[in-house]
Amino acid sequence: MSNNSQNDAPIPTMGRYPILDRVTLPADLRNFSPDQLKQLAEELRAETVDAVSTTGGHLGASLGVVELTVAMHAVFDTPDDRIIWDVGHQAYPHKILTGRRDRIRTLRQPGGLSGFTRRSESEYDPFGAAHSSTSISAGLGMAVAHHLRAEEDPSYKERNVIAVIGDGSISAGMAYEAMNNAAVAGPGAGRLIVILNDNEMSIAPPVGSMSNYLSRLMSSQKFLSLRDLAGKVVKRLPPKFERTAKRAEELTRGMITGGTLFEELGFYYVGPVDGHDMSQLVPILRNLRDAEDQGPILLHVITEKGRGYKPAESAGDKYHAVSRFNVVTGEQKKAPAGPPSYTSVFARELLNRATTDDKIVAITAAMPSGTGLDKFAKAYPDRFFDVGIAEQHAVTFAAGMASEGLRPFCAIYSTFLQRAYDQVVHDVALQNLPVRFAIDRAGLVGADGATHAGSFDLNYLCCLPNMTVMAPADEIELTHMTATACVYDDGPIAVRYPRGSGTGLDLPEKGEILKIGKGRIVRAANRASGQKGGIAILSLGTRLAESLKAADQLSAQGFAVTVADARFAKPIDKALVEQLAQQHDVLITIEEGAVGGFSALVVQHLAETGLLDQVKFRPMALPDVYIDHNNPDVQYDQAGLTARHIVTNAAGALGVDIAAQQSA
Amino acid sequence: MSNNSQNDAPIPTMGRYPILDRVTLPADLRNFSPDQLKQLAEELRAETVDAVSTTGGHLGASLGVVELTVAMHAVFDTPDDRIIWDVGHQAYPHKILTGRRDRIRTLRQPGGLSGFTRRSESEYDPFGAAHSSTSISAGLGMAVAHHLRAEEDPSYKERNVIAVIGDGSISAGMAYEAMNNAAVAGPGAGRLIVILNDNEMSIAPPVGSMSNYLSRLMSSQKFLSLRDLAGKVVKRLPPKFERTAKRAEELTRGMITGGTLFEELGFYYVGPVDGHDMSQLVPILRNLRDAEDQGPILLHVITEKGRGYKPAESAGDKYHAVSRFNVVTGEQKKAPAGPPSYTSVFARELLNRATTDDKIVAITAAMPSGTGLDKFAKAYPDRFFDVGIAEQHAVTFAAGMASEGLRPFCAIYSTFLQRAYDQVVHDVALQNLPVRFAIDRAGLVGADGATHAGSFDLNYLCCLPNMTVMAPADEIELTHMTATACVYDDGPIAVRYPRGSGTGLDLPEKGEILKIGKGRIVRAANRASGQKGGIAILSLGTRLAESLKAADQLSAQGFAVTVADARFAKPIDKALVEQLAQQHDVLITIEEGAVGGFSALVVQHLAETGLLDQVKFRPMALPDVYIDHNNPDVQYDQAGLTARHIVTNAAGALGVDIAAQQSA
Repeated sequence: MSNNSQNDAPIPTMGRYPILDRVTLPADLRNFSPDQLKQLAEELRAETVDAVSTTGGHLGASLGVVELTVAMHAVFDTPDDRIIWDVGHQAYPHKILTGRRDRIRTLRQPGGLSGFTRRSESEYDPFGAAHSSTSISAGLGMAVAHHLRAEEDPSYKERNVIAVIGDGSISAGMAYEAMNNAAVAGPGAGRLIVILNDNEMSIAPPVGSMSNYLSRLMSSQKFLSLRDLAGKVVKRLPPKFERTAKRAEELTRGMITGGTLFEELGFYYVGPVDGHDMSQLVPILRNLRDAEDQGPILLHVITEKGRGYKPAESAGDKYHAVSRFNVVTGEQKKAPAGPPSYTSVFARELLNRATTDDKIVAITAAMPSGTGLDKFAKAYPDRFFDVGIAEQHAVTFAAGMASEGLRPFCAIYSTFLQRAYDQVVHDVALQNLPVRFAIDRAGLVGADGATHAGSFDLNYLCCLPNMTVMAPADEIELTHMTATACVYDDGPIAVRYPRGSGTGLDLPEKGEILKIGKGRIVRAANRASGQKGGIAILSLGTRLAESLKAADQLSAQGFAVTVADARFAKPIDKALVEQLAQQHDVLITIEEGAVGGFSALVVQHLAETGLLDQVKFRPMALPDVYIDHNNPDVQYDQAGLTARHIVTNAAGALGVDIAAQQSA
Repeated sequence: MSNNSQNDAPIPTMGRYPILDRVTLPADLRNFSPDQLKQLAEELRAETVDAVSTTGGHLGASLGVVELTVAMHAVFDTPDDRIIWDVGHQAYPHKILTGRRDRIRTLRQPGGLSGFTRRSESEYDPFGAAHSSTSISAGLGMAVAHHLRAEEDPSYKERNVIAVIGDGSISAGMAYEAMNNAAVAGPGAGRLIVILNDNEMSIAPPVGSMSNYLSRLMSSQKFLSLRDLAGKVVKRLPPKFERTAKRAEELTRGMITGGTLFEELGFYYVGPVDGHDMSQLVPILRNLRDAEDQGPILLHVITEKGRGYKPAESAGDKYHAVSRFNVVTGEQKKAPAGPPSYTSVFARELLNRATTDDKIVAITAAMPSGTGLDKFAKAYPDRFFDVGIAEQHAVTFAAGMASEGLRPFCAIYSTFLQRAYDQVVHDVALQNLPVRFAIDRAGLVGADGATHAGSFDLNYLCCLPNMTVMAPADEIELTHMTATACVYDDGPIAVRYPRGSGTGLDLPEKGEILKIGKGRIVRAANRASGQKGGIAILSLGTRLAESLKAADQLSAQGFAVTVADARFAKPIDKALVEQLAQQHDVLITIEEGAVGGFSALVVQHLAETGLLDQVKFRPMALPDVYIDHNNPDVQYDQAGLTARHIVTNAAGALGVDIAAQQSA
């Protein structure tokens, strides 16, 4: 890898961007000289660092692709040519170059730019992302579509489609399915260029044989020189360049070529090349652009995550995701020390239990620290498995372990468990195998926005026979539920909990084992024994706090209010549901998920018992829209799931206008 | 491939099984001589043909693995050693050898053996299956679990785990994720043997570069002779055999070895070998069993689907799935010519539309004939894409096409769309891309049983913002809905329809374009204008026929009954729901899916409008159990979703006992 001086000075051009200031859209940079493009990359890096220092975000990945971003926009005719950034969190420099520099300091802020690519944000984002490993499939679909259109309409110009995917993301089965199909998808696929952005680092170091293979490719070969590459690429040039081609080819004869695995999968493999060397990137991309249509291409580019910004380069995670920071020192603004996160509470209790229970094993799909399992990994390396970005495998691997008597915990974010849905259904639930699902980031998740929201797990899990689903109201409850999952061997069990901090409660030394399918009354309606009426709020998950606030407000208005914590989304506590329905005029359920999860099971039971005819039932759930990134409190307010909304809903059911009373 | 005489005689031993009769469990065959094992294989093949001729089922795949089945049980210490059959539909011979011969003629029959492997059926089925590509993940989990147990308990004997997977199944991303993890999963993985059962044929011919790669492996090498193989395998033998090993290794020097791709993925590759030559299979498996623990092994076995039974060998689909047949002639019992299937009705209308709309493209994941797209493929080969068993890729590939203005139809069975759930959420629904989902086999599916039931799609789709979901009441409706999906460009749209025949209605020349989110009244309550009361049945899907039957019965008892067809599970027809709730005492919804799909949206709207307090709402859905294979009518009766159940439910809501009245 070339090692130029920009590594030593922090950010030379900080604050002065003579070249970058000339670029509003990619067209503006296409006539830049090679030196100007290099300069542009330096300024773009500085601007990226400066912007993210004020917003926080995924810095490391963006810094690794600065040169690649500039080179691609210099060579390809975007937005007509399509660039798809896999995951999309490395696209900050791309956003700066594509008409969004004026808003780059709104990144991940309420109402501001998304932290990922997004079709609705720019025509330069032809396919949005956030989850990994989708880019090759999408790109192949586009390339084929262009070809079909061109076949029907000779005036239609075929476009190049470039999918930029990291070495971590290529471990997902989806990427393999796409690669396996690329060469056979028809003639349009020839305009697909996959750029493998290999930084030997995804969020955590990547795992798996593919990763080892890439390392071998990298270490066994020197970087191809420009001349060598010309030789490889030249074979694909149009006939008029044939003479040059012949000569260049001779130069490369005898060269050891690599990438067999990709070539077996039908790709024309080029690389590895230094992804920070603009003087190589631009001509190589130009050659690939002008190459004859002989099938899909894989360009293997080596980059360094955090490149060019010392504090990032020297950080263990290469500044994967940072909070706001001081540009000169790199020091990140620490959030004021708050209560421990739900993630850490889960991890703590799991570790407690694992100390005395050697059947407990833990599995993550490339998220050792995000799931809190990094501590488990240190304590019990033999019982910890990071399978890489491979959720499907993670779940069935866990099912295999469970079938042999182990107690596997699959810790996967709600949104990513969607990747393994069939495995949950077919391999776990149907066989009633006791796999434990620790589902982090359930409900609305803040700055990561709709793509990362955990809105659907209650829907897609509660419909499955044999499945048990818990949701803690606070961190003490999560401790109990983790303990309960540890010892429950009768079938699959899931606990879903939110992103962020708990409520600051003192944690118990040891979690209690909960009774499966039993909720609890948290606040009983204050009234004489035997009296009926009033409002029951049955809360699932951390809306309990809002439910209690609402109860206070309603009580102040003279209503008798009972608040219960369901604890279990499935099986529901039938006795509790019956009791609440029988003793109150109104029964509200509230959950941090879409319509049709927990509440559907409640209404089914109420209908079957006839109690539905006796109580005013009001289910509250997430609305039928994707909620943009924002502070979670704002998101839940937008979703209509706060104390205020509960009060309004209860009042509406009773036909009184409490809001008016309050303001009177 | 060796070509012995059994190909020419139909089934020599039919009816006489001197060797097979001596085998109740695999232990009984472990001391058989090589000749006896060969004879056993012939008898086992005959018994398999004979059994399936009376039950119907997946014959071709089972015939391809007869020798492999015998060899594995002869060499490995099952059930302590684990054999996992990927998909499991090739396990009929395995079932015969593992204590289930006496029930083999109950295969796929009500109350009989499952058509797949199943944990609850036998300890020789350590991991159940039915969906493809799960075996390597599960096997790896088992192998690692054994190792962990052995570490803790020195008396615990580690077991061999053998995953048998077809060349079609290996194209799924899940299999790749597992292979990518096998070599790095820790020392236990060394006891994992993956047997790649390569018959160049899954249900349809397999597609993709992996398939091409396997063909190249096969054609570029002669089959390894036993001596060659000894050389390959001997490297892994325990030290005491070292001298022999050395000599054998010399023999193989200079041999071209293959399987680079698998070796890059960390497997020790052995093959290809003739999967019908018992004299090779047994010693090879024995060597692999006794090999030192140096990492996971991939044994590449070439077999022929339908092998040894002439009618199967010469059939285009190699008797993949057959109905009952005459053993001598191979002639399959044709079901009496009934109405066209929903599958064919969908395919017909799609083809109609495609004739005049060149934006329509169609995608299947290895199910060209199962989805009815084979006709489309013939008519429009350029606009048809079979991506192999790769549902994740199929959906995002379609999303890429939709983003470029095409009108892609993704035709995937309900149960298999679970494999692509995150792609539906993240790539399609969130971006509001107009991908059309043709969801076949929705609801209960008959002989394939719970693993193939389409019970959850309403749950996992109706919760997604932007998603439109239709379900036809009959084949005319399916024609309309297919037409509607063709022209709907505002976002994703799905139509879900059952397995099997329609009701025999005359199909319209051309489907009508339905108004999105509008249902229809099929039968209005017979009463004076303005009068209220009675029962409304709001049916989604093909329960409409039962709903009308129930209405007849209820009418005969003097009740006013309205029957409506919802047509759309999402968006619901709010005006229709309101009207039904306002004008009736009881509102029943009925759907062919689990609790929480369509009905949850209805109840939410009823609650929000306050109408839920005015009507007795009774949602009817599948019960919270997995329903075993059986005739679909019996299954729906077990599920409580027939006319009888509707009547009982309505009567219960009204507090009258209609069943008693009927019997009186």
